[in-house]
Amino acid sequence: MNFTRYFPILIWGKAYNNRIFVNDAVAAIIVTIMLIPQSLAYAMLAGLPPEIGLYASILPLLIYAIFGSSRTLAVGPVAVVSLMTLTAASAIAPPGSAEFIAAALVLAFLSGIILLSMGILKLGFLANLLSHPVVSGFITASGIIIATSQLKSIFGIKANGENMPALISSMAENIGSINYPTFLIGIFATAFLFWVRKGLKPLLMRFGMPEHIAELVAKAGPIAAVAVSTMATIIFSLEEKGVKIVGDIPQSLPPFSVPLMNVELWQQLAVPALLISVIGFVESVSVGQTLAAKRRQRIDPDQELIGLGAANISAAFSGGYPVTGGFARSVVNFDAGAQTPAAGAFTAIFIAIAALFFTPLLASLPIATLAATIIVAVLSLVDLKTPAAIWKYSKMDFAAIAATIGVTLIAGVEPGVISGVLLSLALFLWRSSRPHAAIIGRVPETQHFRNIERHKVFTDPRILNIRIDESLTYLNARWLEEFILEQIADNILVRHVILMCSAVNAIDASALESIEAINHRMIDADIKLHLSEVKGPVMDRLQKSHFIEQLGGNIYLSQNEAFDAVIAIANRQKEAETPFDPYHARGVI
Amino acid sequence: MNFTRYFPILIWGKAYNNRIFVNDAVAAIIVTIMLIPQSLAYAMLAGLPPEIGLYASILPLLIYAIFGSSRTLAVGPVAVVSLMTLTAASAIAPPGSAEFIAAALVLAFLSGIILLSMGILKLGFLANLLSHPVVSGFITASGIIIATSQLKSIFGIKANGENMPALISSMAENIGSINYPTFLIGIFATAFLFWVRKGLKPLLMRFGMPEHIAELVAKAGPIAAVAVSTMATIIFSLEEKGVKIVGDIPQSLPPFSVPLMNVELWQQLAVPALLISVIGFVESVSVGQTLAAKRRQRIDPDQELIGLGAANISAAFSGGYPVTGGFARSVVNFDAGAQTPAAGAFTAIFIAIAALFFTPLLASLPIATLAATIIVAVLSLVDLKTPAAIWKYSKMDFAAIAATIGVTLIAGVEPGVISGVLLSLALFLWRSSRPHAAIIGRVPETQHFRNIERHKVFTDPRILNIRIDESLTYLNARWLEEFILEQIADNILVRHVILMCSAVNAIDASALESIEAINHRMIDADIKLHLSEVKGPVMDRLQKSHFIEQLGGNIYLSQNEAFDAVIAIANRQKEAETPFDPYHARGVI
Repeated sequence: MNFTRYFPILIWGKAYNNRIFVNDAVAAIIVTIMLIPQSLAYAMLAGLPPEIGLYASILPLLIYAIFGSSRTLAVGPVAVVSLMTLTAASAIAPPGSAEFIAAALVLAFLSGIILLSMGILKLGFLANLLSHPVVSGFITASGIIIATSQLKSIFGIKANGENMPALISSMAENIGSINYPTFLIGIFATAFLFWVRKGLKPLLMRFGMPEHIAELVAKAGPIAAVAVSTMATIIFSLEEKGVKIVGDIPQSLPPFSVPLMNVELWQQLAVPALLISVIGFVESVSVGQTLAAKRRQRIDPDQELIGLGAANISAAFSGGYPVTGGFARSVVNFDAGAQTPAAGAFTAIFIAIAALFFTPLLASLPIATLAATIIVAVLSLVDLKTPAAIWKYSKMDFAAIAATIGVTLIAGVEPGVISGVLLSLALFLWRSSRPHAAIIGRVPETQHFRNIERHKVFTDPRILNIRIDESLTYLNARWLEEFILEQIADNILVRHVILMCSAVNAIDASALESIEAINHRMIDADIKLHLSEVKGPVMDRLQKSHFIEQLGGNIYLSQNEAFDAVIAIANRQKEAETPFDPYHARGVI
Repeated sequence: MNFTRYFPILIWGKAYNNRIFVNDAVAAIIVTIMLIPQSLAYAMLAGLPPEIGLYASILPLLIYAIFGSSRTLAVGPVAVVSLMTLTAASAIAPPGSAEFIAAALVLAFLSGIILLSMGILKLGFLANLLSHPVVSGFITASGIIIATSQLKSIFGIKANGENMPALISSMAENIGSINYPTFLIGIFATAFLFWVRKGLKPLLMRFGMPEHIAELVAKAGPIAAVAVSTMATIIFSLEEKGVKIVGDIPQSLPPFSVPLMNVELWQQLAVPALLISVIGFVESVSVGQTLAAKRRQRIDPDQELIGLGAANISAAFSGGYPVTGGFARSVVNFDAGAQTPAAGAFTAIFIAIAALFFTPLLASLPIATLAATIIVAVLSLVDLKTPAAIWKYSKMDFAAIAATIGVTLIAGVEPGVISGVLLSLALFLWRSSRPHAAIIGRVPETQHFRNIERHKVFTDPRILNIRIDESLTYLNARWLEEFILEQIADNILVRHVILMCSAVNAIDASALESIEAINHRMIDADIKLHLSEVKGPVMDRLQKSHFIEQLGGNIYLSQNEAFDAVIAIANRQKEAETPFDPYHARGVI
């Protein structure tokens, strides 16, 4: 066993020094400032008490620092996974209840086991089933759902709903009971955070601040909103006026917790945990790869599965909920100069200190401020340009993104992902069952063969030249059979078929059976099947079957050689036979 | 709407004449003689009263003659579908009960609707999901199960079991109560039928009979076994000695029946009906294509779906059960000289006459004779050569056939097919996620580029030439991303990457996103991405995206041209830069 494969810390740890330490520590302070309000907000979004967001930002970060292969990925609670946790655990118990919190722990535990197993068994390729349109559509729809769900906290009203239609109608019912102080805080915080995003950086730069520092200060905007709205709440006693606040957060390190070993509960949560794992993994890897490439580093997706798996298992044992690599915080970590996963470990330590000593400061923080933080964060997830670009590029892929967005909004997150995956797969299988193949002829005075429909080429009515442009598999084997038999039935003069196999990388057992059947049927009809340009590995394999000995015709190295040789054979056949009678021909090329 | 597309009878019906009529009628008589004992036997295998086998051989044949696209396919009850019917309907009610018979009718109806819908929506490609190893393994396993299940009728004992292990242990328990007269009939009938298969034809030919007539006479062997064993039963009053007989069969035309419109029952039978449809369709099309090719005819798979769908719906309304095209009887029909589907219609008429007038002759037919007929027929389905050949050819395909046979034998027909399909699909997706790609270089003094691992080629350490050998899809896009980023991370001198796209037939939206990401990451790392030999349709589509305008490098018509041009660019860059410092290089090609 190669230890460094499973413990990337052994590689970067060896070269660790003072300079790297300072860089990592500075990055960790900046990420911590950003992460504290976000952790509380995402825990709230997931229907959990706020401290659980902090707990999920401590041990998982330490563990990821040991096992993760990305140098700069920042792990913790993220918006989409929080929404998925809310949806899955709500099916077990009402949000906030002890059973609900236990279900969130189990989700973290199961996700961890799933990710870890996929990593050890090198099953990362299964994440490929989530096509880009599905992931993009799902995140956009989730962003819309999350932003909509937070409006109730901005208005200070009650609203509930499993999906968008229910949520909106519930909000519409309760809009009369709006709480104006809450609404004021919410609307100001939202406006402020939007302005921080767009306007603060140029302003700071105009005051002479270097661009990358201005960028980082702007990212700390939420902490200002937290501070100001908390103070306003205390000064004006807004809690008495109906403004909901975070309330007391226990001052403690993460508790040791054990996920419930309840088989029935595990069965109920298995599918949601799988979806949380795969969506979290896909997002995390894509962030990790983008950042790694900027420094010509590299991440190992199978090791990422192990790192994220271990992080989630540790979340389950330290009172947390499912975590993954977050986009915004990873970019902040990277931009702030983090160089190794130690930055993540330092972030964990700073958050632990905050959890121990600073939580009383957050007790009077209005929920509306957290809602504003969430809305501003998730609206950047909503991407309507991609569906438009995909519509122009490919109607099939558009069907996948449209279905994912539509089903997610109307029926919820799980049906949304599942229907997107199934539709993508069905479309892929449909395309795979119709391979590209062309009837070809020789370009005059060359050795090149081209599609007879696009080029002026030389053909011989007794010889059918077919170029196959894909590997032959069980999905397209039957298509090939039908295509060739159809061509033969339509062209009664044909006595020879040459299959040009230059683009065939593999022939599976079903396709072998099909070309054997084609060969036998052609022998029955007194037609010879020839092959040309068969690749080495394909030929090696064909030699293990009986196909080559049963082949009616020959195998040629090049299509040009094949065509010449077969013309010669056909000419010899002609001499040996009675003259051809055109009145019996059913079709002519 | 093109009527002849949906009613092939309009095409062959126009050219119908006396000569064709005589040929069709003779073939129909021979098929009828073969079909009568088979229909009774397969109905019994399906757990249905014998007359239902006859009913399923009347109206469906007439309807297929109108809609079917094969000229010589003979439709009716077949062994594998009968076994699947038994399994599916047994889950509803005990075999032989009124509810069981009603379930079989519903199965025929649902199969008909499924096949018809697939035909109208042109979804025939879904049958491709059944790979050759899965179909072959399933049929072999079904043959073993059927043959084993008939042993109880040969021994005259009782035995029951959902799957092979249960069946065998049930037979072992009851082997003590063997009925010797039954066993004698069974063993003689089996031996006789085996001999007829192998020995009768050569014997008849030695007596001067022409080969194809000897072949047809040998196919009529079962009727001799039926006649002799029936007479023996009557003469020696074997029924009193415990020999089970077919008993009274109502003398009637098929009754008009209406499948139960019970939603719950439909839900229970939906999956089995789907499997029956698809397995039946795949078998039928493969027989139809084999026969059509011998006469250079052609069948239309989508129209076959319509033909088989209509036949099954008609079975549901005429007291039958699921039917499909049978291999043995179609070959007999073909060999006997059938020229059009009218032969099938005549067969239906002859069987109707038999059902009306000759059923009393069959009352004393021993069940053991029918069991012998089934055993001899299905043992030809058991094919152990194919698994051996597939083992040699491809270990992955062998996994699919082994899983299908194993699961079918141990857990039953439905889990068997489903696990085979899922395993084939998983293996296909796994292979699709690892496309073939090669680092290439120029073969000296040519314009050809070949794999650097296999050929002595010229390369430039600043330029990475990659040939992609497959279409880029969402399944392999991430692989490509990792492959290229890995190559760049490993080869620090690289400043240009040229992707040779000669084998790329399509790039889907996910793959587009990936090559866009590759391009952006390379721009970040100051590396230029170039493309060469992009196919016309792929280029047309890329032009609808922003990829080409964002591309760091250029697009070249040929790989050779690209390599020359990029070397020139790299040389100009070199002049403009400080000299290269080898001590900072992490790797060299």
